[in-house]
Amino acid sequence: MSLTTVICVLWAVSVGQTAGSQHGTNIIIMLMDDMGWGDLGVFGEPSKETPNLDLMAAQGMLFPNFYTANPLCSPSRAALLTGRLPVRNGFYTTNAHARNAYTPQEIVGGISPDEILLPELLKKKDYVSKIIGKWHLGHRTQYLPLKHGFDEWFGSPNCHFGPYNNSVCPNIPVYNNSEMKGRYYEEFEINVKTGESNLTQIYLKASLDFISQQAVAQRPFFLYWAPDATHAPVYASKRFLGKSQRGRYGDAMMELDDSIGQILAHLVSLGIHNKTLVFFTSDNGAAVMSGPLQSGSNGPFLCGKETTFEGGMREPAIAWWPGRIPAGTVSYQLGSVMDLFTTSLSVAGVLPPDDRVIDGLDLSPVLFNNSLLDRPIFYYRGNQLMAVRIGQYKAHYWTWSNSWEEFNKGINFCPGQEVPGVTTHTQEEHTMQPLIFHLGQDPGERYPISVESKEYRDVLRRVTAVVEQHQKDLIPGMPQLNMCDLAVMNWSPPGCEQLGKCLKAPESNPWKCDWPH
Amino acid sequence: MSLTTVICVLWAVSVGQTAGSQHGTNIIIMLMDDMGWGDLGVFGEPSKETPNLDLMAAQGMLFPNFYTANPLCSPSRAALLTGRLPVRNGFYTTNAHARNAYTPQEIVGGISPDEILLPELLKKKDYVSKIIGKWHLGHRTQYLPLKHGFDEWFGSPNCHFGPYNNSVCPNIPVYNNSEMKGRYYEEFEINVKTGESNLTQIYLKASLDFISQQAVAQRPFFLYWAPDATHAPVYASKRFLGKSQRGRYGDAMMELDDSIGQILAHLVSLGIHNKTLVFFTSDNGAAVMSGPLQSGSNGPFLCGKETTFEGGMREPAIAWWPGRIPAGTVSYQLGSVMDLFTTSLSVAGVLPPDDRVIDGLDLSPVLFNNSLLDRPIFYYRGNQLMAVRIGQYKAHYWTWSNSWEEFNKGINFCPGQEVPGVTTHTQEEHTMQPLIFHLGQDPGERYPISVESKEYRDVLRRVTAVVEQHQKDLIPGMPQLNMCDLAVMNWSPPGCEQLGKCLKAPESNPWKCDWPH
Repeated sequence: MSLTTVICVLWAVSVGQTAGSQHGTNIIIMLMDDMGWGDLGVFGEPSKETPNLDLMAAQGMLFPNFYTANPLCSPSRAALLTGRLPVRNGFYTTNAHARNAYTPQEIVGGISPDEILLPELLKKKDYVSKIIGKWHLGHRTQYLPLKHGFDEWFGSPNCHFGPYNNSVCPNIPVYNNSEMKGRYYEEFEINVKTGESNLTQIYLKASLDFISQQAVAQRPFFLYWAPDATHAPVYASKRFLGKSQRGRYGDAMMELDDSIGQILAHLVSLGIHNKTLVFFTSDNGAAVMSGPLQSGSNGPFLCGKETTFEGGMREPAIAWWPGRIPAGTVSYQLGSVMDLFTTSLSVAGVLPPDDRVIDGLDLSPVLFNNSLLDRPIFYYRGNQLMAVRIGQYKAHYWTWSNSWEEFNKGINFCPGQEVPGVTTHTQEEHTMQPLIFHLGQDPGERYPISVESKEYRDVLRRVTAVVEQHQKDLIPGMPQLNMCDLAVMNWSPPGCEQLGKCLKAPESNPWKCDWPH
Repeated sequence: MSLTTVICVLWAVSVGQTAGSQHGTNIIIMLMDDMGWGDLGVFGEPSKETPNLDLMAAQGMLFPNFYTANPLCSPSRAALLTGRLPVRNGFYTTNAHARNAYTPQEIVGGISPDEILLPELLKKKDYVSKIIGKWHLGHRTQYLPLKHGFDEWFGSPNCHFGPYNNSVCPNIPVYNNSEMKGRYYEEFEINVKTGESNLTQIYLKASLDFISQQAVAQRPFFLYWAPDATHAPVYASKRFLGKSQRGRYGDAMMELDDSIGQILAHLVSLGIHNKTLVFFTSDNGAAVMSGPLQSGSNGPFLCGKETTFEGGMREPAIAWWPGRIPAGTVSYQLGSVMDLFTTSLSVAGVLPPDDRVIDGLDLSPVLFNNSLLDRPIFYYRGNQLMAVRIGQYKAHYWTWSNSWEEFNKGINFCPGQEVPGVTTHTQEEHTMQPLIFHLGQDPGERYPISVESKEYRDVLRRVTAVVEQHQKDLIPGMPQLNMCDLAVMNWSPPGCEQLGKCLKAPESNPWKCDWPH
């Protein structure tokens, strides 16, 4: 009796220990949307409904200490693809202190032309790159994926919010490469009432087709698979609706888990699993403010999306590369979505740019030898450094859940959780005496270490040095997320003419975007 | 590459699918003390430091929906060994409304002579039964394990609180069978300052020896292994102290995990693993009021020990029987510690008593065929039914965290958690309109279902029928935990003379025990 006899009925992996050549390795980054650390069975979701992800972990390397670079989607995604903190790559706002900003339809900005994205660099080794799903680095033409290194795209530039009436607000377009093929709630249906949509199936099929094509062409590929079914309004296809013990959010989870199983099985059936690095993670913590039917779980961690507590920024993460990454391992490495940039380059045999600071680490020694690399994790809101983690310790320089004004309207980023002096509805500065937690002993950030203790003084000394070093070298990028304008919305995306779906834009009337939290 | 090649280096299991004869099957119940659901890697503890328990789950059946019968140690243990709710077997108090009671040294009562314990029944099939570790069903002579069916005992009757000065309060004795062999903090050291103690190693060795002896004698055995290292003051032996990422509590966890690995490995090496049912669980939720160094984790659940929220009563649980229980399975069965009584009898081929209500189910169909049995879970404090779970729904008839008086003293059973109207510091009655949660969608009990909804009305109708049926048949046992007396403390346990360790008891002066929560 072995584990494999029972579990591997889903998709069997059978390879020798021969490591594939690193160069030419295919790279798949699976980036989930608003999925929380606690949403995976392997991370303790009580319904245990993610057999494929759990098996992926059992066949690969699990990262319990993996982080996003920002507790919100757009900056997180910009950081992943540039290997740089949002405060460097410009995906932040300076309109108010310590605010999270993203790319709604009315945003004027997007990814700076000065930034170099992962697929641009992979071209040096003849990679073909495709993004499937949500882009979120700007929806105006100059910001779209095919202008920034991707060869192919199927998906949408913004969140699938809606439905809109196309008069004061257009529905979000769905693109195939550089032309729109329709809009959400029109050609690409999402039934907000029932939660039914085929989008995950469409994104699954697009990924399987792309992988097949590159396998036939024997060309190395980079697939950035970014489905958004777990972002409110959450959706699932008919086969999954109502199937989860967890309600609609769980249905979406089950469908994504099933899709991930199918993608890995496809790699195995094509015989390319031992030359493909697959990395699974999420863009930020679960959006616990959306209530039980529309949000996931951050497990034992404090608060969620939008906050710099662990629930906002610690992510589920699994690396899978049969024959190369040792199976069934746990890495305690402090990892970051930015490392996926550097690690992908390393695996592809491409040097990272040397004309700028890259925050991402090359995790190859971690993946292949379970080494541990010393590095801090920085938690930002806007251009404000809110907190830093070194080793097991996290020091909060600023704390803020959200404003009283929002909280009193029912917007709660920490439902059911309240830690006096830690979860606050006013911005609290602790720069002279940071709140320090030991995350191993206290993953829920409930018990600040006494400022009177030697432990506190030792940690403070070490973390102060790290922060001083960080801030000394920091040259903030030009903030890209300050200006909004109704005229820039998705009125007439490229391709709208052929479809007869162009809409009339209002006159330009830009304003400084309001970022309430 | 298979999971086994990597993980099973610890202890390999290799058996055919031939089921051992059920009768004569050895039974090991591993009952942890104050260990929380979220303390296992397989249930999402972020440090992932329980490789042996995680492997036990991968080779056995994991129960995410397993419950104790009371959020406190003594009643939970009495329920396990009698298969009956504490309100039936007498392990409760009526001194005040809805109070948790246990067996401190000053308790007069203990397990009623009218109750029939599991080892008494197993004698019918010539089992030899041993308890190793904490008893907690009464420390006066007539209540001790060898008076209630156990053939052997190594351990103590009460919690290892202390050290005491032996004048106003005696240190707790440690027994070998029916005579004391010393006292905690004297012959059996626990260094409260450093957390060092060899007790888990002693309990491990005792279990390995007992198993070896029965294997040689070819006699079926029942081992009730109840170490208490994770109960405050938590302790670990030198080899484990300081080794965990989680601090002292984590050190104790690591040592228990290691011990469990050794016990399972011992069964394998003796070749009796395929005729031994091993069941792992805990007596109540993590004691989160004890702070980060002295308490475990209840994962995503609300509150902890002493409460009838999920954090107080949902337990980690794993069943292991290679060749008989399918490996790598998850059972969604609502299970209870009381089921261990009935299931053990079933496996041993003994009929349960037919002269009394038995609350425990025979889980054999669950273990061997992954069937699901319909049954409610009752959550009690004292003789007050606080809540009921049917399927995914939980209805709270009464809620109470603890009193304002205690809370204001710093005793917090829900640190960092607060759900308005749910976690309350006054006893709140909801009998006319219970708070109902869907635990699949809302495991953290944060979002009561609207009383206006059809869902609420449907659930209320179903749960009302279950409660009415339950209360109609309920004949409460005589409460055993009402009276206290300093004279009954462990002054002069049997065997104290030989050791010269008898102490003088004060005169009897009984009072109604004060149970503050």
